[in-house]
Amino acid sequence: MAKDKKTPRPRAETPKGFRDYFGSDVTTRSEMLARIAAVYHRYGFDALESSAVETVEALGKFLPDVDRPNAGVFAWQEDAEGEGDKAKPGDWLALRYDLTAPLARVYAQHRNDLPLPYRRYAMGPVWRNEKPGPGRFRQFYQCDADTVGAASVAADAEICAMLADTLEQVGIPRGDYIVRVNNRKVLNGVLETMGLAEDAGHDRDAVLRTIDKFDKVGEAGVRELLTTGRLDASGAFIDGVGLSMEQAEPVVAFLTSKAATLSETLTNLRAAVGASVIGAQGVDELEQIADLVGAQGYGPDRIVIDPSVVRGLGYYTGPVFEAELTFEIFDEKGRKRQFGSVAGGGRYDDLVKRFTGQEVPATGVSIGVDRLLAALREKGRMQVSEQGPVVVTVMDRDRMADYQAMAGELRRAGIRAEVYLGNPKQFGNQLKYADKRASPVAIIEGGDEKARGIVQIKDLILGAQIAENATLEEWQSRPSQYEVPRDQMVARVREILDSQSSDNQSAESQSNA
Amino acid sequence: MAKDKKTPRPRAETPKGFRDYFGSDVTTRSEMLARIAAVYHRYGFDALESSAVETVEALGKFLPDVDRPNAGVFAWQEDAEGEGDKAKPGDWLALRYDLTAPLARVYAQHRNDLPLPYRRYAMGPVWRNEKPGPGRFRQFYQCDADTVGAASVAADAEICAMLADTLEQVGIPRGDYIVRVNNRKVLNGVLETMGLAEDAGHDRDAVLRTIDKFDKVGEAGVRELLTTGRLDASGAFIDGVGLSMEQAEPVVAFLTSKAATLSETLTNLRAAVGASVIGAQGVDELEQIADLVGAQGYGPDRIVIDPSVVRGLGYYTGPVFEAELTFEIFDEKGRKRQFGSVAGGGRYDDLVKRFTGQEVPATGVSIGVDRLLAALREKGRMQVSEQGPVVVTVMDRDRMADYQAMAGELRRAGIRAEVYLGNPKQFGNQLKYADKRASPVAIIEGGDEKARGIVQIKDLILGAQIAENATLEEWQSRPSQYEVPRDQMVARVREILDSQSSDNQSAESQSNA
Repeated sequence: MAKDKKTPRPRAETPKGFRDYFGSDVTTRSEMLARIAAVYHRYGFDALESSAVETVEALGKFLPDVDRPNAGVFAWQEDAEGEGDKAKPGDWLALRYDLTAPLARVYAQHRNDLPLPYRRYAMGPVWRNEKPGPGRFRQFYQCDADTVGAASVAADAEICAMLADTLEQVGIPRGDYIVRVNNRKVLNGVLETMGLAEDAGHDRDAVLRTIDKFDKVGEAGVRELLTTGRLDASGAFIDGVGLSMEQAEPVVAFLTSKAATLSETLTNLRAAVGASVIGAQGVDELEQIADLVGAQGYGPDRIVIDPSVVRGLGYYTGPVFEAELTFEIFDEKGRKRQFGSVAGGGRYDDLVKRFTGQEVPATGVSIGVDRLLAALREKGRMQVSEQGPVVVTVMDRDRMADYQAMAGELRRAGIRAEVYLGNPKQFGNQLKYADKRASPVAIIEGGDEKARGIVQIKDLILGAQIAENATLEEWQSRPSQYEVPRDQMVARVREILDSQSSDNQSAESQSNA
Repeated sequence: MAKDKKTPRPRAETPKGFRDYFGSDVTTRSEMLARIAAVYHRYGFDALESSAVETVEALGKFLPDVDRPNAGVFAWQEDAEGEGDKAKPGDWLALRYDLTAPLARVYAQHRNDLPLPYRRYAMGPVWRNEKPGPGRFRQFYQCDADTVGAASVAADAEICAMLADTLEQVGIPRGDYIVRVNNRKVLNGVLETMGLAEDAGHDRDAVLRTIDKFDKVGEAGVRELLTTGRLDASGAFIDGVGLSMEQAEPVVAFLTSKAATLSETLTNLRAAVGASVIGAQGVDELEQIADLVGAQGYGPDRIVIDPSVVRGLGYYTGPVFEAELTFEIFDEKGRKRQFGSVAGGGRYDDLVKRFTGQEVPATGVSIGVDRLLAALREKGRMQVSEQGPVVVTVMDRDRMADYQAMAGELRRAGIRAEVYLGNPKQFGNQLKYADKRASPVAIIEGGDEKARGIVQIKDLILGAQIAENATLEEWQSRPSQYEVPRDQMVARVREILDSQSSDNQSAESQSNA
């Protein structure tokens, strides 16, 4: 840790790619995670908080996240143990890069004490040692729920239903989201039909990579890429996989098999997988999932079988799910588009095997915490700015005890309140401070007020509105500062806060109309 | 990250000194932290979540924690930027070791955007690269509240009051805690009187180290250590500082100055500091703090001036506070002792100076999250084990949709519920599973029940009690399994859960009586 040059003072900077979260950014996320945890808990999932630090050996490489393929880990080596010839090199440790790899380690380590199946949820920061970019951070939150040790697709169906409940619980209304379900086994069946079995190597990988692009290039684009190649938007020519049109057809049929009804979709899929046993099994699983969630009232308006979902299809081994928000927003360029994906998951079966040799089926979902928060802000479902505290100003520095007592009274009535603790000399600074704190109300009690047994209450929200908009008459008819007897202070502040929040609500309902 | 030898399988182990938290250990802590955050918020403190990773340069060395003096950090170097001759070595990064050093960096970095004074709270894990020991982990939670930029002791008084409110809010009853307040300035005054000014070097440090031992060795021990030396319990002789009895007297007078009333204590302190100006200022500050909290109703039964508080006295620059829990517990050896300290803090003034050169006064408190959780468990204020879910068993694997629907109905009624998702063949395994999940109730619906329109509801808590204690007659008069019509399932489960929790409460009130 030697420094190359002496700097007189350290730089006060977050490391590159890291950031700090202030005030409502912290509390809004906590509130959202608490609501999610309540749903997971009601579904019988237990909380797990594993250590942030893992051995590199235990962590392995399990990254399902196609968006961040080159992500590395932050790693360091422990000091050696012992000395001289007997020194044993220290373990390599690393910060977890997701919550799934630690689950594998935890399950393998504690499997004798854990119930089987083991349903667990986990929420917390993960770290990626990658090049930071705009809006891309090296520490971010994940929020996962997984069921380990249940081979039945009932476990997958349960996770889809729970995901729908979770979205509604945090404030995404029914109709604004859809959980789409696909199955890797169906794709495997399609590939089998095409003669691209698991050992087909190059061609199979090329087909999988092409499917990943379906979101972007669409049906015609996939057809081109699977056959002779495609000229992309930038004018560059992308070589094709070299299949014939006939060979490419089952893949396209699979990707475009979603029809108006479930039974039509399933019929299309059965055609696409032909005689493949694994393919037929995959279609059966999709049917079972649709039946299971349907029996609980989750219709295709909430959970739908949709073979066009390709995210993660290369990683997962069975059912794959993705939650999309379907309401429209304006992107940076002012164009309307759907909000898009906020959660994804699926079934993966070699989670624990690398530790124990034993195959343990598992399925789970991961919610993109920052994406979902952004969506809730977009929908106005999460208060973006937190209400500031009532500020009790200091007119007479020797009567600090009185001011503290006022703040105490307000707090006991459940009102957020604080005494100004800076230098009280310049009263203007106190009001500027109240402004910076987004205070709704300031309390003023100088010697004169004290002698008369009153306090001044300043409605800072109304004051700001009047300063901005009001005519002189309105200003006179709606004063923003009131004298009230000292013993009515709390009641009057409560009244003002209530009137402010009802003003707010009517403003909100106007903007929603 | 090369491995020295090939291991066929990775070890499934948490790194040494780290641990995982399961179920109620996670949720109980979250619940406690949420209650603490609510109090802090009501006092006008804003949440801050800084990044877990800091540059080593920004982190510096600010460790106030006398319990862990040798703690190091987990650090690593970023990859170099650029190549060849132009390569710039990467920054050294490290995991934060507390929440105070990051606050200094955050405040210096964002000071133009933050209010002044800035009240903030922070809660989260910190990491120490130290030798793990029993009950001592390398990752643990801290929970801090600090006020930056307020020189007034009103800020210290506010933190003491908030600490008392916080303890009551999480479930420590009044009378079971005490917040003790001391002041480093008074000690400075005492040292000045003794001729040990700040430049007195060796002797002054030796006296400070001796004072730190007051908790353990008491008045006579300190007197010995300050003068000729002391034979400790192990039979080893500890050299004394070499002061004369007269010289040692002011220190002893300071440490033992607490009297029955505040005014007596203050009189004793004024005597101990003699003509020292800084000492007199320190005593005045203590008096102001006592006045400020007293005016808000915090009497000496809750917040008391107590010069025997020495923890952190070497680190802080002004008022120092410590919250102790005064109820008695049995230690590992079965002896009664007071529970002891759960939070501490004080005023420190060079927090931001190393970044900006500007002196910024600050004061704050840190709650020992694990200690306070342990205390709440001790007092029975936090449910130690969480209630398990109602388990809907699977009698007929083809009717999984029915079982899922039952679990869904229970959840919609707010009841935690899940369907058994393991292999349903062996019914005994399902009941064993319910047992491991601490399930209160199991639901059973086989083909026969289905045909008759009923379900079986098994009260697993009562069943276990009966299996353990009951006579045959009781067993017959209080069956633990009931047949109910399918459409009364939810209502009956609710009844059973209510009866279980009232049984629990009466058992608790008995054990408290």
